[in-house]
Amino acid sequence: MGREWNPEDIDRTRFTVDEWSLREDRFDERDFGHTEALFTVSNGYIGFRGNYEEGRSNHEQGSYVSGLHETWQIHHAEDAFGFATVGQSMVNAPDARPMRLYVDDEPFIPDKAEILDYHRRLDFRSGELTREILWRTPEGKLVSIQSSRLVSFTQRHLALMRLTVTMVEGDAPIALSCQILNRQDGEDEFGVVQHSLGKGIEPRKAAAFSHRVFEPRYRDQQGLRSVLGYRVAKSGMTVAVAADHRIETGNEYQTSGTISDDRARNVFEIEAREGVPTTVTKYVAYHTSNGYPVQELVDRCGRTLDRAMADGAEEIRRQQRAWLDEFWERSDVRVADQPEIQQAVRFNLFQVIQASARAEQRGIPAKGLTGSGYNGHYFWDGEIFILPFLVYSNPEVARNALRTRVQMLDQARARAVELSVDGALFPWRTINGEESSAYYAAGTAQYHIDADITYAIAKYVRATGDTEFLAREAIDVVVETARMWASLGFWRGFNGRRTFNIHGVTGPDEYTTVVNNNLFTNVMAQFNLQYAVDALAEIALKHPDDAALARTRLHITDDEVERWAQQAAHMEIPFNEHFGIHPQDEQFLDREVWDLAGTPLDKRPLLLHFHPLVIYRFQVIKQADTVLALYLRSDAFTAHEKLADFEYYDPITTGDSTLSGGVQSIVAAEVGYQELAYDYFVNALFTDLDNLHRNTDDGLHMACAGVLWSALVSGFGGLRDVTGELAFDPRLPERWSELSFPLTVQSTRVRFTVTRDALRAEVEVGDRVRFTVRGRPYEVRAGQLCVVPLDGQGPVLPGEPDISQLGELRREDGTLLTTSIPVQTGSIPLPHTVAEA
Amino acid sequence: MGREWNPEDIDRTRFTVDEWSLREDRFDERDFGHTEALFTVSNGYIGFRGNYEEGRSNHEQGSYVSGLHETWQIHHAEDAFGFATVGQSMVNAPDARPMRLYVDDEPFIPDKAEILDYHRRLDFRSGELTREILWRTPEGKLVSIQSSRLVSFTQRHLALMRLTVTMVEGDAPIALSCQILNRQDGEDEFGVVQHSLGKGIEPRKAAAFSHRVFEPRYRDQQGLRSVLGYRVAKSGMTVAVAADHRIETGNEYQTSGTISDDRARNVFEIEAREGVPTTVTKYVAYHTSNGYPVQELVDRCGRTLDRAMADGAEEIRRQQRAWLDEFWERSDVRVADQPEIQQAVRFNLFQVIQASARAEQRGIPAKGLTGSGYNGHYFWDGEIFILPFLVYSNPEVARNALRTRVQMLDQARARAVELSVDGALFPWRTINGEESSAYYAAGTAQYHIDADITYAIAKYVRATGDTEFLAREAIDVVVETARMWASLGFWRGFNGRRTFNIHGVTGPDEYTTVVNNNLFTNVMAQFNLQYAVDALAEIALKHPDDAALARTRLHITDDEVERWAQQAAHMEIPFNEHFGIHPQDEQFLDREVWDLAGTPLDKRPLLLHFHPLVIYRFQVIKQADTVLALYLRSDAFTAHEKLADFEYYDPITTGDSTLSGGVQSIVAAEVGYQELAYDYFVNALFTDLDNLHRNTDDGLHMACAGVLWSALVSGFGGLRDVTGELAFDPRLPERWSELSFPLTVQSTRVRFTVTRDALRAEVEVGDRVRFTVRGRPYEVRAGQLCVVPLDGQGPVLPGEPDISQLGELRREDGTLLTTSIPVQTGSIPLPHTVAEA
Repeated sequence: MGREWNPEDIDRTRFTVDEWSLREDRFDERDFGHTEALFTVSNGYIGFRGNYEEGRSNHEQGSYVSGLHETWQIHHAEDAFGFATVGQSMVNAPDARPMRLYVDDEPFIPDKAEILDYHRRLDFRSGELTREILWRTPEGKLVSIQSSRLVSFTQRHLALMRLTVTMVEGDAPIALSCQILNRQDGEDEFGVVQHSLGKGIEPRKAAAFSHRVFEPRYRDQQGLRSVLGYRVAKSGMTVAVAADHRIETGNEYQTSGTISDDRARNVFEIEAREGVPTTVTKYVAYHTSNGYPVQELVDRCGRTLDRAMADGAEEIRRQQRAWLDEFWERSDVRVADQPEIQQAVRFNLFQVIQASARAEQRGIPAKGLTGSGYNGHYFWDGEIFILPFLVYSNPEVARNALRTRVQMLDQARARAVELSVDGALFPWRTINGEESSAYYAAGTAQYHIDADITYAIAKYVRATGDTEFLAREAIDVVVETARMWASLGFWRGFNGRRTFNIHGVTGPDEYTTVVNNNLFTNVMAQFNLQYAVDALAEIALKHPDDAALARTRLHITDDEVERWAQQAAHMEIPFNEHFGIHPQDEQFLDREVWDLAGTPLDKRPLLLHFHPLVIYRFQVIKQADTVLALYLRSDAFTAHEKLADFEYYDPITTGDSTLSGGVQSIVAAEVGYQELAYDYFVNALFTDLDNLHRNTDDGLHMACAGVLWSALVSGFGGLRDVTGELAFDPRLPERWSELSFPLTVQSTRVRFTVTRDALRAEVEVGDRVRFTVRGRPYEVRAGQLCVVPLDGQGPVLPGEPDISQLGELRREDGTLLTTSIPVQTGSIPLPHTVAEA
Repeated sequence: MGREWNPEDIDRTRFTVDEWSLREDRFDERDFGHTEALFTVSNGYIGFRGNYEEGRSNHEQGSYVSGLHETWQIHHAEDAFGFATVGQSMVNAPDARPMRLYVDDEPFIPDKAEILDYHRRLDFRSGELTREILWRTPEGKLVSIQSSRLVSFTQRHLALMRLTVTMVEGDAPIALSCQILNRQDGEDEFGVVQHSLGKGIEPRKAAAFSHRVFEPRYRDQQGLRSVLGYRVAKSGMTVAVAADHRIETGNEYQTSGTISDDRARNVFEIEAREGVPTTVTKYVAYHTSNGYPVQELVDRCGRTLDRAMADGAEEIRRQQRAWLDEFWERSDVRVADQPEIQQAVRFNLFQVIQASARAEQRGIPAKGLTGSGYNGHYFWDGEIFILPFLVYSNPEVARNALRTRVQMLDQARARAVELSVDGALFPWRTINGEESSAYYAAGTAQYHIDADITYAIAKYVRATGDTEFLAREAIDVVVETARMWASLGFWRGFNGRRTFNIHGVTGPDEYTTVVNNNLFTNVMAQFNLQYAVDALAEIALKHPDDAALARTRLHITDDEVERWAQQAAHMEIPFNEHFGIHPQDEQFLDREVWDLAGTPLDKRPLLLHFHPLVIYRFQVIKQADTVLALYLRSDAFTAHEKLADFEYYDPITTGDSTLSGGVQSIVAAEVGYQELAYDYFVNALFTDLDNLHRNTDDGLHMACAGVLWSALVSGFGGLRDVTGELAFDPRLPERWSELSFPLTVQSTRVRFTVTRDALRAEVEVGDRVRFTVRGRPYEVRAGQLCVVPLDGQGPVLPGEPDISQLGELRREDGTLLTTSIPVQTGSIPLPHTVAEA
C-alpha cells in the first residue's frame, strides 16, 4: 500500500504545474532516484533514465535497449520438476549519454557545484528533455549550460543530445568529454563496480552479475565517430553503439579521442571567450540482435548515423515534434480546468507511449525503460493494463506488442509440456519467452496470463477490425491458449449439474495462491474458450484461405471447437448465496478476515512483513481480482452483483500493488461510489509523480500509468467494449466539468466529450462510428456533432464500503466467520482470533 | 514408489541368510553405494559407513559425528518474508578409519586386487563389522587380511579397529598406514576434491561447500598417538579426533609418523614372515561441541583413549557384546521359522539402535549416520516412526531424543514469531533447531510437527510413567505447541455448529500442500491441545511443586487451559457423507483423481516427473496421511470409518515415500486386508536390504526401519496404546506360525507371543502389567504365563481396494468427479480429462 496522495505533498515551487511538460525549477539531489525515473526519455526501444549528462552522482544509471538481456541459471534453494531454470535480466546497455564538462579543468558535478539557476523540463510535445543551468565555478566564473536529450520516435535506433556551454562571465579553457561507457562491467567514475553480485531474483529489482556480461567484439574510432560492439556472454545477444559529434562555436577548439573495450571518448577542448557559445551535438545509434554478427550491427549503426547527420539535428527535432503532434491528436485526454490533473494525465500517457512506441517485437517491461525494477520483465501488464489505451489510440503499437506474444508461442508450447497441459502456456514473467518466475505460487500458477493475452487480441481485433492479423498470426495464440484451458480444466457433476472446473491456479491477487475455481481465472478462461470458437468462425467467413490453413496447421477439428464451446458455456462460476457475492475462489469465504484497519502502517505492504503462509490463509487482497473481473468481463455480471462484490472486496483490498487503484476506481465509479472512485483515481495518477509507493526509484509503474487511461475512459467516461460494441454510461466526477478523449475505432477517430449533462461525439478522422449510451444506440458521422443528453452520472452512494459494517453483517447473518484482528505478539503483529467458543 | 520386493531379487549365494548377522560372502564392487550403507557401524554418536579400511574406491566416504554440521546462507531464487535463511548440512568428520596395507610396496585396493576369498559380516550381537580376505598379490604371494571395526555402545566417543595381516605364502615387507584424514576439505587419494560446490539443497542429498569447512586448530603426534582438532568455519562447532595404536606381532617392525593439517599418519613397517601374523589395533576417539575450545576436546579425546587402552580391545568387545545382549533381551522381535524375515527384522532393529543409542541430545537423522542424504537433518521421523520402538524397548534412548526437542524450544519460539503464531513452532527439518526447509509448501507448512512431538512425549510418558520428565522439562514443549495450535486455528460457525478450524497447512502427504482442515493435522492438533490439558492436570497431581513452577514460568491461566479443552472438543473433523469417508482435507474430494494405474513406471516417483502444480491439483498421495491418522488416533475412528477410509485412500497412495508402507500395512491388517498388509510389510522390510527405492546409497531409510517395529507389534501384533492402555487385537499373517516381542511398560518387561490361536504374555523383568485383548482386560504377573485364546485373526477381506472399483462407485453414485488419466502428450505424460459434457 502506498501513501494517500495529498495535493500538498508535491512542492510546486520546484515542480511547477505545466499542462504540457514536467518541469523542475530547483535543483535537489536528495531524490535523484525518483527524478531519474520521471525524466526518462525513451521511444520504447532505447530508454535513457533521467541521469544527468555528467553521468556521475545517481541512484541508478540506466541506459537500456528493449529486450537486451543476459540469462543466468536460476538456483532454487530446493528444486523441483518444472521449476523455471533460465533467469533473464535486462542489462545496462553501453551508456552513450555522458557529455562531461570541465571549466578551468574543474569538472561540473551537479550535486557538488554552486548552481545559481536551474530548470529541467520533459516536454510532452517536443519529446525532448532539456536542462538549463547557471553555474558559478570554484574560481567564481559564471557558466551557462544548456543541454537537451531526445530519443527519436521516428528513427527507432537514434538518440540525439546537445550541450551548449557559454562563459557568462570570464574566459576559460573548456573541455567537453563525450563518452560511451560500458557501465555493466566497467568501473564508474568513483571506482565502484556497478554490478558485482548475482544471486537470485529480488522480485522487484534487477539481478546483477559476477561475470563479464559484455564481451568486447568491436571497437573503432575515426574522426569524431566512436563505435563499440559486444556480445552478451550467456544470452548470446549482440549490441553495437555508435556516437558521432558536431561542434558549432565561434571559439577556437581542438578535438581528440581514445577508445578501449569499455569506454570511448571524443574530447573537445575549447578556448571559450565570454559570451561566445559552444554547442556540441551528439548523434547516437544503438542496434541489437539475438545473435547477428556484431559487424552487421556496427554497419547498421553507421547507416543510422550517416542518415541522421545528413538530416541534421533540427530536422530530427522537427520529425519528433510532428510525430508527437499526431500522437496527441489520437491520444490526448483532456480534463477541463484542472491543470494539475491535466499535467499528470499527460505525463502518464506520454510515459506509456515512451515505453511502447518502438518496442515493436520486444515486449513492454513492467517499468518500461525507466529503471531496472522487475529485471525488465514483461508480465500481463501490457495486455491488460496498457493495451486498451494503445488499441484505441495507437493500434499499430498494440499490434506489435501482440506480435511479441505470437513470437513467443514456441516457448509457450514447450512450457505447456513441462506443466502437463495441452497447447501453450505463456510465462508469467519473461524477456525471451521462457518462464523466469522463480516462485511458482505467485508466478507460473497465474495461468490467467493465457487468457489475458487472448483477451487483448480480441480487444485489438474488434476495435481495429484487423481480422487479417487474427487470421494469419494471432489465431495460433487464440487456439493454443484455448487448448491450455481445455486440458487444465475438468468436468465435475453435482446433483445433475455439470460444470467445467479449473483447479490449482493463482488469480491476480497474489495474497491467495494456488486455489480452485478462481472467479477471475474462470471468467477469463471462459472468454478465451469462447473467443477461440468465435475467432475461427470469423476468419472462416472473412479470410477463408487463411482459416483453412490455420485449421490444417493447428490440426483443429470440429469436435474440438465444439468442446471449447461447451466448456465455455458450462464454466463453473462460483457464487455464494448467503452473501450474494462471487467468492474470489471456491474457499475464499471460508477463510478468516484480515483486519486491515488494525494492521499498523509500518507492517505494510503485508508481503514484506508476513510469511506467505500467514497471508494466504486470510481474506486479504493484494490487488483487484474479482473486482478486475467485474470490469474486464462486465458482460458477465449484473449491476446488483457488481455492487455486492465491490462492497465485499473493496474493504479487504490492501492496494499493496499499484495495479489495483485504477481498477478499483473504474468499478467504484460504475457501482456508484463516486468519491471513492475519484480518490482511487488521483492516487493512481500520482503514484509515480508523488512516489506514493516509495519505489519509483526502481522505475515508473507502467501498468498503473496505462490503466489510468482506462480509469478516465472506462471509469469516468463509462466505456465498456467487451462484446465489441462501444457502450457508454458516464460517471463524470463531481468536481470536473468536462472530460474528453479520442477513440480510434476501425480507422475512424471520434472525440467523445462528457459533461455533466451530455455526452458529445465528433468524428475527427474517417467516416462514422456507432455506439450506445445507457443502452440506446447512436451513430456519429463525419461533420456531425452528436449530442446525447445525460440525466446525471449514475448512482451516487455515500462514503465507501466499510469493513466494520461487513463484520456487523456477518454477526447478524450468524453464519460465517469471526473477524480476526492482527495484534502484537513478540516482535511482529499477529493475525489472531479474538472470539472463542 | 520403489520396486516390489521379490524374494528372488537378493542373491543368496552372496548374501547368505543368517538370523544374527548381515553376511556378504562374495566381493562385488558394483553396488558399493548400497553395501556401504548396509554395513554401517554406529552408536548414534559416531557413524562409520561401511567403506573399506583402505578408504579408496567408494560411492560416498562417510565418517559422521551426530550433529556435526556446517551452516550456510540459503539463497532463495525469489525470497519472501520468513523464508528459512540458515542452511545446515552434516559434514564428513575427519575420517579415522583408514588402515592401508602395502605388501612389497603394492597397495591393497579391493576393487583392483585379485581376491581369492572374501567374507564380510555385520554381527547384530557383537556389534562388530568383520572382514576376511585372501589376497593374491601381483607377485603371486598369498596374504590373509582380517579386519574388524566397532563403534562402542558403552563408550560414546570410542571406536575400535583391528587389522591382522598374515603372509600365507612367502615372506614380504608390509606397510600399514593408519590415518586420520580430513576428507571434507582435503583431496582424496585420486586427487579429487570431495566437495567443491555448494549451492542450494538437493532435498535428498548433502550440500557441499566451496569454502574450507574445517579450520585447523590443533595437531599433535606423540608416539603412536595422533590428534587433530578443528573449528567448523560457519557453524562455530569444534571437533577433535585422536587415534592411538597397538601392534602385536612376532615379526620385526618399525614405526614412523607424519602429521599435517588435513592428515595424520602412523605407519608400521613390518618384515613379515610366512605364517607369522601382525595385528594392529587402532583406538579412536571423537569429541565435538557447539563451541568449546578445541583444546578441551583434545583433552577429552586423550582421556577416552587412555581409558580404552587401559581396558584393552578384548574388554571393549566384551562390553559391546554385553550391551547388545541386553538390548536384544529388551528388543528382539521373533518370527518363528522365517529365517530370511527374521534376519531382515533384526537388521532393521539393529540399524535403528545404531542410529539412536548414544545420539543423546543430538537428534536422529532421517538416514541415521549411514549416509549424507537429507543433509543429516532431523524431521518428524524420530517422533512418529522411530520412537514407538524405543519407548517400549529402550526408554532412556527415547527420553534423550525427546530432550533434543526440549533444547530446541527457544528456536521454535522464535520461529513462531516469524510465522505469526503463539507458542513454539518446531522446524520441519533441522540440525541446530532452526528451520532449514527451503520450500515451505512441503516444509514449514507441515505445522503437524508440533503435534507429532507432543504425541511422542505423551507416548513416552504413558509407557514409562516418567511423569517427572514431563513435569520438569517436556511440559514446556507440550504447552507451547498447544499454544501454537490455539493461535493458528480459528472458530467458525455454521448453522449453530461452531468448530475450531486450522487453515493453510500441509499434512504428511506432500502431494497436496497448503490446505484447509487437513484431517491428520486436525486430529493430531486435537490430541496436542487435549494432552496439554491432561498433562497439566497430571503433573499438578503427581508433582505439585514442579507443576506450580511450570505454570508460573509459562504464564498459564485457567482460562487458557479451558480454551484448549474447548478447541480440542470442537475441533473440525471433516467428513464426507456421500462417500462416508474423511476427506484428507476440506477440498480433497473436489479434486480430479490421478490415474495411478495409467501412469507408466518410468514416470515414478511423480515428484521427479511432474511440476508440483500438476501433482497438487489431483487426488494422489505421496505417503499415508489420513491412513496414518487412523493408526495414530485409532481412538478417534470407528472400525467402519477405518475400513471406508482405507479403501478410499489406499488405491491413490503412490508409496513414493518409504514412510508409507509400514503404516499402510498396519491399517490394512486392522481393517482386514491381510495379504495386502503382508505385502506392504515385506516391501518395507526389504526397502534397504534390497534397495527397492534405488537410493539406499544415500543412506538407510531410518523411519522405514523404525516403523517396521510398529508394523510387527501394532500391525500383526495388533497393539494400540493411544489412550495409554495396551490394547491388543492381533492379525498374525496367514503364513506365520508365531510372532513374539517384548514390551517394557513402566519398568516391567513382558514378552508377548501371538500364535494362530492365542496370545501369550510372560513377565521377564519386573512385576505385573495390565492389558486388554479384543476389549477384555487381563493382567500378567511375574512367574505366571498368561494365555489368552484367540478366535481367528480378525476379518479377512479378499484382494485389495481397487481404483477402478472406486471409479465405478463414483459413476453409480453420480455425484462427483470424472476420473482423469495421465496420457502421453509432448514428451511427458499428461493428466488429462477423458469425459466431456
